[in-house]
Amino acid sequence: MKKEITIYDIAADVGLSPTTVSRALSNHPRVKEVTRNKILHAAKNMGYQSNIFASSLRKRRSKSIGVIVPRLNSAFQSSVLAGMEKIATQAGYNLIISQSMESLEKEISNTKIMFNSRVDGLLVSKAGTTDNIEHFQPFFQKDIPVLFFDRVPENNHCTGVVINNTQAIYDATAHLIKEGCKRIVHVLGNLQINVYADRLKGYKYALMDHGFVFNADNVFTNELDEDSGERIVEKILKLNPRPDGLLVSNDTSAASCLIALKKRGIKVPEDLAIVGFNNDLISRMVEPNISTINYPSYHMGEVAMKNLINHLDDENQEILQKTNTITLRSALIIRDSSKRRH
Amino acid sequence: MKKEITIYDIAADVGLSPTTVSRALSNHPRVKEVTRNKILHAAKNMGYQSNIFASSLRKRRSKSIGVIVPRLNSAFQSSVLAGMEKIATQAGYNLIISQSMESLEKEISNTKIMFNSRVDGLLVSKAGTTDNIEHFQPFFQKDIPVLFFDRVPENNHCTGVVINNTQAIYDATAHLIKEGCKRIVHVLGNLQINVYADRLKGYKYALMDHGFVFNADNVFTNELDEDSGERIVEKILKLNPRPDGLLVSNDTSAASCLIALKKRGIKVPEDLAIVGFNNDLISRMVEPNISTINYPSYHMGEVAMKNLINHLDDENQEILQKTNTITLRSALIIRDSSKRRH
Repeated sequence: MKKEITIYDIAADVGLSPTTVSRALSNHPRVKEVTRNKILHAAKNMGYQSNIFASSLRKRRSKSIGVIVPRLNSAFQSSVLAGMEKIATQAGYNLIISQSMESLEKEISNTKIMFNSRVDGLLVSKAGTTDNIEHFQPFFQKDIPVLFFDRVPENNHCTGVVINNTQAIYDATAHLIKEGCKRIVHVLGNLQINVYADRLKGYKYALMDHGFVFNADNVFTNELDEDSGERIVEKILKLNPRPDGLLVSNDTSAASCLIALKKRGIKVPEDLAIVGFNNDLISRMVEPNISTINYPSYHMGEVAMKNLINHLDDENQEILQKTNTITLRSALIIRDSSKRRH
Repeated sequence: MKKEITIYDIAADVGLSPTTVSRALSNHPRVKEVTRNKILHAAKNMGYQSNIFASSLRKRRSKSIGVIVPRLNSAFQSSVLAGMEKIATQAGYNLIISQSMESLEKEISNTKIMFNSRVDGLLVSKAGTTDNIEHFQPFFQKDIPVLFFDRVPENNHCTGVVINNTQAIYDATAHLIKEGCKRIVHVLGNLQINVYADRLKGYKYALMDHGFVFNADNVFTNELDEDSGERIVEKILKLNPRPDGLLVSNDTSAASCLIALKKRGIKVPEDLAIVGFNNDLISRMVEPNISTINYPSYHMGEVAMKNLINHLDDENQEILQKTNTITLRSALIIRDSSKRRH
């Protein structure tokens, strides 16, 4: 790497004092417009790097926010990140991003790197196997704010940005019941994750409120991936009486189920009505279109980042500490995959 | 923020010299195992932050890599980023990520932030409106490596990681001709982007090699988004004779076209055969499944990051300077949307 250009080099080049150069570079009002322009021009030509890095060190601010997601390679997370990036850039913050690959060990290692990189704040959607938040203690000790989104730990003193997962699945279950479904299967991810535990509650409450008995055989915990449809449909076909409703916790898996059902000549929604989750592109592209829960992922990214930055800029730093949960609006979108009444 | 813990605080706590503490924290072999453990334990309890930040400043290494993509909210880019993150984390680098939103102005502003954040290297997939690379000059001047991926500028001295877009579309066009297509429409993005300019070449070459005459009416430059299908199909229906082959530069738009065609009772592949691009999930989920080009996006992320880090770790720094282009293998995947012969 070449020699670092300093304000002394620029001063020598333009024939002015280092003090004037320093003032011009920091937009000091005492420097005349014409002088400032001359200095900025020289600084640019010489390849001067304004020393955010060193000045951040003095102010104990790195002007960067760490983000840890379970997987970068996800339609949901990439939409959240796009919303976060927009707000962060507007506020002059960098985004340092890593993925936990759904592993607690990797998440612990990610948090260490973020801590030592001196992020000003941390946004986390936790890994499936994360059952405690002890690895965030170094952040808590130093009053570096940690804000969770989507997947939040239970019983903690951090703020979480979420949707009402219980209500969302309650509404979807009630909708299927209204469409005449008598036996509804619910497919979920790892129940250690609040998101799925809350959805299971919504499913149970809706059954109860409509006079149905909860049956654990109707709950499948699965990987919800692109190939899950075959496995899920095989399990459904073994149940007697055969289920007539299917509530799947993401649209990729719901679409995969739809394809596996059609392959077997089982009609959707006539034989089996389907509701997915997220409102991903895929739900609008398969036939029939899949009813789903609209999850405002981009908006979640914006809100989480905005709250974190407001907290950093707030002298009192009280608002975030007193906020436990920020809940965003989600909504059931009814499409052809679950319309059984004509 | 609370008071910063220094090695002097730890030394006072454990009753050892600051030198010993410093050595223990940097894994110096002269410190006994039991002493080291005692010091590490105290450092952890006291909330000591190992000073990567300051030590990076001394070494002129921030241990971070900047990545600028057109949009974070894209199946292709999120897969590339996942590959990059994996390699970067393994090598102890942070990823600083931003999106240009397809705007040259935003890309210029992103590069300035990256430069002042002192990234050790930069990975860029350029915005649609970027027609020069002057804004990377500060990096070139300081010998900070810049590596482009997917969307690379023409005539530059930077390395690019790409697929052979010309060959990919050549193969797809030849396939459609072999399936009996006589008039093939090609839908592309902004032709200022190398990716699309190269694909157009492949389309022209394949037509020529098979005795067809190129007709500019058959080339649509479009936005390739989720809603593009209706617009594209409307244009196709105005052509006379009606096209019988359709080559679309991404799978989202190809799927959108498929749906718009089916809505009008136009049979795929009998009336119109379709080939998409990327091998996104959507291509495997719609009916019929869409033939496509397998784009190794995750692998592209891994390769780009690996090459950049190897360059940073290489004393001679010659390999990357002498490499112009790294081309990854792509391949045509034939599915039902283009199988017209029985």
